[in-house]
Amino acid sequence: MESHIVWQNDRLRLLDQRFLPEKTAWIECVSHKDAAWAIKSMIVRGAPLIGVTAAFGCVLAADDYKDDPVWRRKIDAALTFLSKARPTAVNLSWAIEQMRPDIASVASASLLRDVWLEKALAIQKKDEEICRTLGKAGERLVPGKATILTHCNAGALATAGYGTALGVIRAAHEAGKDIRVIADETRPFNQGSRLTAWELSQDGIPVKIACDNSAAALMKKGLVDLVITGADRIAANGDTANKIGTLGLAILADYYDIPFYIAAPLSTIDRSLSSGDEIPIEERSPDEVLFLNDKRIAPDEVSAFNFAFDVAPASLIDGIITEKGILRPPYDASIANIFKDSLDA
Amino acid sequence: MESHIVWQNDRLRLLDQRFLPEKTAWIECVSHKDAAWAIKSMIVRGAPLIGVTAAFGCVLAADDYKDDPVWRRKIDAALTFLSKARPTAVNLSWAIEQMRPDIASVASASLLRDVWLEKALAIQKKDEEICRTLGKAGERLVPGKATILTHCNAGALATAGYGTALGVIRAAHEAGKDIRVIADETRPFNQGSRLTAWELSQDGIPVKIACDNSAAALMKKGLVDLVITGADRIAANGDTANKIGTLGLAILADYYDIPFYIAAPLSTIDRSLSSGDEIPIEERSPDEVLFLNDKRIAPDEVSAFNFAFDVAPASLIDGIITEKGILRPPYDASIANIFKDSLDA
Repeated sequence: MESHIVWQNDRLRLLDQRFLPEKTAWIECVSHKDAAWAIKSMIVRGAPLIGVTAAFGCVLAADDYKDDPVWRRKIDAALTFLSKARPTAVNLSWAIEQMRPDIASVASASLLRDVWLEKALAIQKKDEEICRTLGKAGERLVPGKATILTHCNAGALATAGYGTALGVIRAAHEAGKDIRVIADETRPFNQGSRLTAWELSQDGIPVKIACDNSAAALMKKGLVDLVITGADRIAANGDTANKIGTLGLAILADYYDIPFYIAAPLSTIDRSLSSGDEIPIEERSPDEVLFLNDKRIAPDEVSAFNFAFDVAPASLIDGIITEKGILRPPYDASIANIFKDSLDA
Repeated sequence: MESHIVWQNDRLRLLDQRFLPEKTAWIECVSHKDAAWAIKSMIVRGAPLIGVTAAFGCVLAADDYKDDPVWRRKIDAALTFLSKARPTAVNLSWAIEQMRPDIASVASASLLRDVWLEKALAIQKKDEEICRTLGKAGERLVPGKATILTHCNAGALATAGYGTALGVIRAAHEAGKDIRVIADETRPFNQGSRLTAWELSQDGIPVKIACDNSAAALMKKGLVDLVITGADRIAANGDTANKIGTLGLAILADYYDIPFYIAAPLSTIDRSLSSGDEIPIEERSPDEVLFLNDKRIAPDEVSAFNFAFDVAPASLIDGIITEKGILRPPYDASIANIFKDSLDA
């Protein structure tokens, strides 16, 4: 698959994921506000990809204010604006905080733009490498023949490439294992049926869509060997925020004794939060539930809940697959250790 | 709400539930095959309503063969054909088996038609009465102020009127309780967002739609006080088949210690089956998942699971609300008793 996020001619080109797979449309971001809007409106989504997009958003911010006499203040404010595009995925602020210290240390806005462009391109490249490493690490959890249920899209489209949960699936497939995937539809944005099903079928990995409400029945029938999802933010104790529906899957997998794994880069772990209760959960417009393809699919006078994420407690997670290996419970200890090791490395 | 199933001018008029609430279209059944098609294609749905429709389907069958020399054989075959329109809801065969013995005992097909019309009208009238009685019985399980999560549509539209799960909700509302309802969207047919939300808002009962995958998050947030769903078939041990997703809700409610109730008339109980494992589960066309309003919403090359029902084990059900009161575990005993009592009555 060609890359869906490309820096080209001083602009950020993004594949518009709202219309996939029906329509392959691209948008171009020429300012940091465009990048923030692309994140907010879910033209791009998926925690790692939001991080990469934000990194390029910083480049655009430096460019936006290159002739401004108070460029340092303006760019700093632009980064704050960008960081508020969506609240739950920590990769957004993670990427921006990689950049922010340079505002004080670099001599001019145009120099800052060049420094940040190099950094953003490195973050993009690194993100795909991390996914491949993470995929290989997780692959050994997958039996020689397995049906894996996944939720939302934690694939190439959610990252710079290859994917996290789908990275593990791709690595298992590439290792010659007999892998079948059940893609949860993932209402209301249908990332599973639109994006995951499309990505995997492009790669020739057998995939079948299931409505979100059928997971329990499929598990009961013995059709699910393991569950792997991505993550938007992981607290220091292992509690994991991910797309709405992940909590339910974790509970159902526990009930049926099916392994439940999270796959995410270390940049998704937010050690500043002691538990998942502290993770901010985005509530989006009810219209995302009430409309499909601009057509209302519910009565005019009725509204809808639209929490975009939920939090699966660490107690229901059998392992967190990262680029530094598989974290196991108790996560307080294994997460603290992995960061200690990462600093040592 | 005016009735959605009406016998008029020797025809069965049915409100076409596939297009609600957007469009109020009616179809007319002039033969038993029309009635079977209406059931199969989900123009009508909901176990009790399927039963009532089948009863009128028998009337049409008698009419279809009134001039046939071998009318007894033809009508018997027509009833068998009708009974196979959908496999899971036992009310379908229940209604037909109320009729079948008359084939042997009544002197002519046109007389049979008249006998059956009277019976069908009585079944229709009785079904609404049962719902009202059941509603009152279940109402005492509902606190003075409660948010009730329900799945699919077990309402007026699923019965001759008033509803089972929604009958309990209506009775609680009519008793002056402060009731709020969360209607699960219920993919792929969206009975919750289309039918339940519409029905309740017509009645002025506060209702909000939630995607199926958000139930766990809503329960965790303390937003759900109890869960009530309908049923398509209940085995002698209390295992209950209902719309796909019900099993998951039962597990989640158990995890969060939230009461989980089934509301169904006694005609939904199939004592010939010792457990839910024996209940036939309908698998419908993947197209119902892959298309919405005739528009494909998934990649062309990918298919989907579409089991229409699942089975919640008796161990997860806190009570079965019937027109003869609330059955409690162990259901083997309480179900056996209620039928003994019903025969005594």
